[in-house]
Amino acid sequence: MNRQVILSSRPEGIPQAEHFRIVETGVPQLQAGQVLIRNHFLAVEPAMRGWVNAVANYSQPVGIGEVMRSFAAGEIIASEDLRWPVGTRVTGMFGWQDYAAVDASTIDYRVDQADLPLSTSLGVLGINGITAHYGLMHIGEPKSGETVLVSTGAGAVGSCVGQIARIHGCRTVAITGGEVKRQLCIDRFQYDAAVDYKREDFAEQLAAACPTGVDIYFDNTSGSISDAVMQHLNVGARVIICGTASIANWNPTPIGPRVERQLLVKRARMQGFVILDHRDHYAAARADLAEWVRQGLIRYEEDVLDGISHAPDAIAGLYRGENLGRRLIRVID
Amino acid sequence: MNRQVILSSRPEGIPQAEHFRIVETGVPQLQAGQVLIRNHFLAVEPAMRGWVNAVANYSQPVGIGEVMRSFAAGEIIASEDLRWPVGTRVTGMFGWQDYAAVDASTIDYRVDQADLPLSTSLGVLGINGITAHYGLMHIGEPKSGETVLVSTGAGAVGSCVGQIARIHGCRTVAITGGEVKRQLCIDRFQYDAAVDYKREDFAEQLAAACPTGVDIYFDNTSGSISDAVMQHLNVGARVIICGTASIANWNPTPIGPRVERQLLVKRARMQGFVILDHRDHYAAARADLAEWVRQGLIRYEEDVLDGISHAPDAIAGLYRGENLGRRLIRVID
Repeated sequence: MNRQVILSSRPEGIPQAEHFRIVETGVPQLQAGQVLIRNHFLAVEPAMRGWVNAVANYSQPVGIGEVMRSFAAGEIIASEDLRWPVGTRVTGMFGWQDYAAVDASTIDYRVDQADLPLSTSLGVLGINGITAHYGLMHIGEPKSGETVLVSTGAGAVGSCVGQIARIHGCRTVAITGGEVKRQLCIDRFQYDAAVDYKREDFAEQLAAACPTGVDIYFDNTSGSISDAVMQHLNVGARVIICGTASIANWNPTPIGPRVERQLLVKRARMQGFVILDHRDHYAAARADLAEWVRQGLIRYEEDVLDGISHAPDAIAGLYRGENLGRRLIRVID
Repeated sequence: MNRQVILSSRPEGIPQAEHFRIVETGVPQLQAGQVLIRNHFLAVEPAMRGWVNAVANYSQPVGIGEVMRSFAAGEIIASEDLRWPVGTRVTGMFGWQDYAAVDASTIDYRVDQADLPLSTSLGVLGINGITAHYGLMHIGEPKSGETVLVSTGAGAVGSCVGQIARIHGCRTVAITGGEVKRQLCIDRFQYDAAVDYKREDFAEQLAAACPTGVDIYFDNTSGSISDAVMQHLNVGARVIICGTASIANWNPTPIGPRVERQLLVKRARMQGFVILDHRDHYAAARADLAEWVRQGLIRYEEDVLDGISHAPDAIAGLYRGENLGRRLIRVID
């Protein structure tokens, strides 16, 4: 049997458990050129909110009645493609289900770090780590001695950004929500400082944590958190727009302090990116990340939910802030 | 006698005639290493508002009682520096006055386009043209076939941006205020289309003028004009922040629609620059610009006020939109 999590209705804003249902079907039959994948881990991430919105932004929305789109990691258990033999561990957009029959072109990559857990291929060695690597290194262009500020600093992407910046000689500062995550940033992810945006004295704490200003701001939140950051930008600062998690609805566009003058006076740059545009960068990023993980220079946290029954509420849970670390769903014992 | 325009009080917002007074003093004596310059043309530009604001942004504010800072073009009439002989035509920050005794380091450049009017050294071959050249070519990075949108399209910088973009094979669209300037954009500055932001149907006109979206937005205005542009950005768009002329006061920061989501979804970049950071680029830009002017590929307009008595009200006049072309004050017959 193949258990599948189906998008059953169109959410406005953050998708909740009620927008999904779980169905059981047969294990799919392979067609020519396809491979059959047994998923081990399914991914859960903030961007999924955008994938189920009615308005297409950088990908077409998931259709009602379709399997929820997701990254997944698993093993090939049948193959009609000689390049992809049975037993190969792979990741790709296999969806929230036990089994996926897909064209080989759907595969993102062959997991070749046999010494590291398969789950890392969806986190620190997967889209999260690669997003952090590309955004920081290619848009941020960090230089030793610069201050790199990360929101959200304890997240799957953010924690990786902070540690990559640290490896490159930067002073690293996390913005995160709550004292538990703040301590995690310091103790586990080795930030030089961490600031809790939920505290009333956030602005003062932020100023104290960035005494020489901010050279790179890696932004996953937007909103009032980013507004507080803007006034600390140094000349030549780079603001990397990776996500906008603090804002639930962009229609109509919410208002906030205008950024143009600060970008002008500080000769600063603000740039968005979508990692799916940069597949040619994945292999090099993964090689760097795997080496840093092996050396203990990058640490990671995972939040593994056991069983596909946790999937429908898993995105909403992310937005409730209940996870510490990369959220995954394990669908195999 | 040396007539000088002095900043007599600190304006809030746009400096008006009442914030200046004209005094007469003796022609200054040269000290070792200095040159004495007889100014021919004094410049008037929107950025002067920032130079007299109490808050330092990218330069220290002009002091009360000091000669108003400005670019000027003139001729060396006495010299204590062998590298700068009498008769040399030069530009630099010589201030709103007839005569300036300055260190040679104050000179921006030796005017070597003897076949072109000296006034061009303050406009199309000066800071305006160089600003347009640097911003468009090095931040915008135009590609043939792209759509380049310019606000304000008829301005001294904007008109040059549009024509440089045209030379590089781009479709060019101007945003400007009023039908006279709109026609000037089409007839004189050779834009493919021009849109009047003062018209009620500005949004519809803008959409019609950019049927394939906007790849580069060269922004001198900020405010509601820029807000209308943002929704037309193409994937990979570049927004060049050169000025914020439509907003009179940035303290406190005015609010507007947030840009983060659009920058993310469109993988777009928004970047400010200050041309004074890029002196190493001036010579190459000037050589390009002079050649394009000689070939008739770049046309320019000047708005020359005759006599230093026009200086005190000249900045306010810019913000009233009364000039067509680069505003200069001629202080020699």
